Amino acid sequence: VEDIDFRLDWTTPELVGAKTLAVSLSDIAAMGAEPKWALLSIGIPANIWDSDFVDRFYDGWFTLARHYEVELVGGDISRTPEKIVFDSIVAGEVIKGKAILRSGAMPGDSIYVTGALGGAFGGLMLLESGFRYSNSSKRHQEIIAKQLRPVPQLASGKYLSEHGIATAMIDLSDGLSSDLRHLCQASGVGARIYAKDIPILPALSEVTVAKDQMMALGINGGEDFELLFTSKEKNLSSLNLPDAQRIGEITENVGRIEVIAGNEITCLQPGGYRHF
Amino acid sequence: VEDIDFRLDWTTPELVGAKTLAVSLSDIAAMGAEPKWALLSIGIPANIWDSDFVDRFYDGWFTLARHYEVELVGGDISRTPEKIVFDSIVAGEVIKGKAILRSGAMPGDSIYVTGALGGAFGGLMLLESGFRYSNSSKRHQEIIAKQLRPVPQLASGKYLSEHGIATAMIDLSDGLSSDLRHLCQASGVGARIYAKDIPILPALSEVTVAKDQMMALGINGGEDFELLFTSKEKNLSSLNLPDAQRIGEITENVGRIEVIAGNEITCLQPGGYRHF
Repeated sequence: VEDIDFRLDWTTPELVGAKTLAVSLSDIAAMGAEPKWALLSIGIPANIWDSDFVDRFYDGWFTLARHYEVELVGGDISRTPEKIVFDSIVAGEVIKGKAILRSGAMPGDSIYVTGALGGAFGGLMLLESGFRYSNSSKRHQEIIAKQLRPVPQLASGKYLSEHGIATAMIDLSDGLSSDLRHLCQASGVGARIYAKDIPILPALSEVTVAKDQMMALGINGGEDFELLFTSKEKNLSSLNLPDAQRIGEITENVGRIEVIAGNEITCLQPGGYRHF
Repeated sequence: VEDIDFRLDWTTPELVGAKTLAVSLSDIAAMGAEPKWALLSIGIPANIWDSDFVDRFYDGWFTLARHYEVELVGGDISRTPEKIVFDSIVAGEVIKGKAILRSGAMPGDSIYVTGALGGAFGGLMLLESGFRYSNSSKRHQEIIAKQLRPVPQLASGKYLSEHGIATAMIDLSDGLSSDLRHLCQASGVGARIYAKDIPILPALSEVTVAKDQMMALGINGGEDFELLFTSKEKNLSSLNLPDAQRIGEITENVGRIEVIAGNEITCLQPGGYRHF
């Protein structure tokens, strides 16, 4: 939704097209599935219809779709009074019984995330502060790209599914604090995570110098589209997933999510993106 | 899309929910298929989220879905800055090789429509003139209901598919003049229709007294969601579809759509709803 999920003066039509598909592919990745086909509905005001926006949007969308061999099979085009809206749906395929759900985490499982967190929210902060990709420093561009050009973790998701490693999985769209809660609620468990183990994007030191604020970005910032998964394996090396980092373990304390920082234990409140 | 496809002060949330599904079911009917599952994405502003709108919308949606045994299998909920948007997708099933496409019409085929035309557009005219369903006469209510409560012609579509009667089919969403053009374009043919045979909703005489204006409503008015189909059968009675009316025949004049009114032949311009 324009002005909720993206702003035209922050990005390009091609990047909006690619991100529209990427966020759906991320959901497919989070089930350990392979994307197959997509439905795309777009609603646009008449003045945008008359511009090159739609052609450039589809360029971005189809470039990513070809890369992952996703076929567009349907959708709709409507006129809207003012704002642009997209509805993106992707169907994927997974071997029967191998789909990774949110509901399979058990007490004692280790909790992992792929990649580094906080970048997408840091990029949002930069954009909101008036920085733009085109006239930014290399370090700022790295952060802004995390917001504008998310990468769906399809290879990691498929690896975890094929090797039966993950017991539960979700993609980090709303933020670690919210999405870990979603996973724990679906599994009927609690979690304990260690602040020192949460991988924060190093470049974020460009956005804020305060260490605890960097941590807050990593815990609450949404849209990184990395994978959060649980596993019986306690040994990271056995996963053979180089960018997976163990950040904690599943507990029996239903609904309770603890963050251990040094000697302090705090209970995590959901601080990620709330749709309403 | 709110204020493009519907207005909240013209209808009820339940009727918006039912129509959102009905227009997708109509597409399924037009292929002679049976609806199976649906995806529904809704985008709503915060003030509507806080009202009873969403519950009542779903009531209307699910009542119709249960009636046709359609299962909701996915979708999304988003916040919008101002206007309500819905994206409705329905998947249907049809025996392999029995799906009726837009592209199968051949010169010499007869052209049929189900039901009576112009009602939905007449209802729109009444609503735009300030009439409302709740405080209208019985005759006005009949017309307004055509706009607010469309009926997908699933039984007729399935009958035509199962008996192999229709060579091509489309539902009348944009209006006869536009949708007949879509069908002719897809089939690479032309058409000749007879003004006297086009079934116009009798109650429309309440909206306009001029006979040629009633005809214009029937030819150009959209959203009746009746079926337009072609058939090798020249004899209506053999169809055993009581509300099907023969209105003309397919010709070899590619792209040319003629309307015969008495001794006059006019070439039809697409006058139905254009999205842009």
